[in-house]
Amino acid sequence: MPYEFKAQRRVEFSDTDMAGIMHFSNFFRFMETAEHAFFRSLQFSIAPGQFEPGPHKVGWPRVHASCDYRKPLRFEDMVEIHLLVAERKSKAITYQIRFGKIFGDTVEEVARGRLTVVCVSFDPASGIMKSTSIPSVIADQIQTAPPELLA
Amino acid sequence: MPYEFKAQRRVEFSDTDMAGIMHFSNFFRFMETAEHAFFRSLQFSIAPGQFEPGPHKVGWPRVHASCDYRKPLRFEDMVEIHLLVAERKSKAITYQIRFGKIFGDTVEEVARGRLTVVCVSFDPASGIMKSTSIPSVIADQIQTAPPELLA
Amino acid sequence: MPYEFKAQRRVEFSDTDMAGIMHFSNFFRFMETAEHAFFRSLQFSIAPGQFEPGPHKVGWPRVHASCDYRKPLRFEDMVEIHLLVAERKSKAITYQIRFGKIFGDTVEEVARGRLTVVCVSFDPASGIMKSTSIPSVIADQIQTAPPELLA
Amino acid sequence: MPYEFKAQRRVEFSDTDMAGIMHFSNFFRFMETAEHAFFRSLQFSIAPGQFEPGPHKVGWPRVHASCDYRKPLRFEDMVEIHLLVAERKSKAITYQIRFGKIFGDTVEEVARGRLTVVCVSFDPASGIMKSTSIPSVIADQIQTAPPELLA
Repeated sequence: MPYEFKAQRRVEFSDTDMAGIMHFSNFFRFMETAEHAFFRSLQFSIAPGQFEPGPHKVGWPRVHASCDYRKPLRFEDMVEIHLLVAERKSKAITYQIRFGKIFGDTVEEVARGRLTVVCVSFDPASGIMKSTSIPSVIADQIQTAPPELLA
Repeated sequence: MPYEFKAQRRVEFSDTDMAGIMHFSNFFRFMETAEHAFFRSLQFSIAPGQFEPGPHKVGWPRVHASCDYRKPLRFEDMVEIHLLVAERKSKAITYQIRFGKIFGDTVEEVARGRLTVVCVSFDPASGIMKSTSIPSVIADQIQTAPPELLA
Repeated sequence: MPYEFKAQRRVEFSDTDMAGIMHFSNFFRFMETAEHAFFRSLQFSIAPGQFEPGPHKVGWPRVHASCDYRKPLRFEDMVEIHLLVAERKSKAITYQIRFGKIFGDTVEEVARGRLTVVCVSFDPASGIMKSTSIPSVIADQIQTAPPELLA
Repeated sequence: MPYEFKAQRRVEFSDTDMAGIMHFSNFFRFMETAEHAFFRSLQFSIAPGQFEPGPHKVGWPRVHASCDYRKPLRFEDMVEIHLLVAERKSKAITYQIRFGKIFGDTVEEVARGRLTVVCVSFDPASGIMKSTSIPSVIADQIQTAPPELLA
């Protein structure tokens, strides 16, 4: 049962700022890239409920996001975005995300972040969203990573 | 009856790229800033229909956008975004947008663009959007700028 | 001696995502908006050293950024970005940033973040950046906010 | 001798706006993705001169960008970005860029744009950039696409 996912992405010109490095806010966009690819790898979409009715019509608003930056990423760097499930609760998931700069066969960690998302359902009548249990069809496919991996 | 609007905006760090200048794609975001402020100045929102039903529930997808760049904009530059109504047709509006760098009392044009938006209505049943006449309550408040201003 | 700054900004269409709310990564761009305006209010630029030589040619890379989200921000919401100096060390500053949705005379907090930046100097010969003491001309103008304000 | 390049990219959540579709400004970021990957395919970087001295230390500022939008792109759509060299002059290149939504083996064009970039060199003493002839090592590898392909 999966507890991690690795995505790759190249730093683009529009990701950089005048300091010549990837703007710090874009690490958060990259986190989401890995999170959504992880969901696709499980045959789900992070946003199925936007357009289709159904029992799994849930959304995943972010309640916490953080990142610690050690080294910069630069234009055309290849980045490994390593997502680990740090905690899976009944209504929320916390991911640890490690950003690694790829040099051939080796990967050097340059930043590490956390992202906590909660599962919500929408009441179509009121438009209000409310936290809800993660549908079991999803929850059953996601487990917490072994503690030694999260150290 | 209004045919122009001037908005101001400062170039932010996250608008720049590693070349030390505002990324070219952000001029298009700035165009929209002026367009939406123009609508607010007429007591409309560009996106009222996203959340509320009603006779004016229309959307404004973009069908054309272009920009010619003469000089760069840099971090902390104050920018005048001068929007002129270049053409108002029954179902579409074309804006000319001039980007000026503000130096005290003078403004130097650094780029000029065009944006064409069409008025659409949504069929809630099918989710399909279809071009429609601009509601008269809006159309009656917008006129084309005098040709000499558009030269 | 200043320990806080309030900036205002309107949520733009390009700040939103398909969930109809401001994308979570854009809160980090807004943090920077307030930080840079705070520096301008002290007659400094966050990026003077990008283009000019001189004794204050320092940079401010981010080493930590985080945000806790309580309520969403939507298109055209007016946002107060309230920056407080949470900690000023010899080589680093930590800001607390509160995002408030403005309703007329009242402000409702919707999110709260932290941003830690370190002061670095560049060695032009090697291109390497190294943490350095905050120049006293800057440090002397910034103090930590009273603890009761940071609670 | 190459005159075209095809890149692929998936529409991300952060590329969308509250209308549920890719924000129109992001098509311009996608254009650049293909342009830069085209350069890499020729063993060049669009930004070698940012950090290294040398005979090919040139930059490529954009002087024109435009896009005509026919159909929207949505979250998780796979997009083919088909770049064609529309014109190669001594100091400038114009690309035609076609955006295609990928459905299995077929591609439906949803938007088409143009991008004109000029080759510039930087005078390190003055910091001024000046248009210059495209270095022959680059120019010799790029040719204009056959007219029938550009129709």
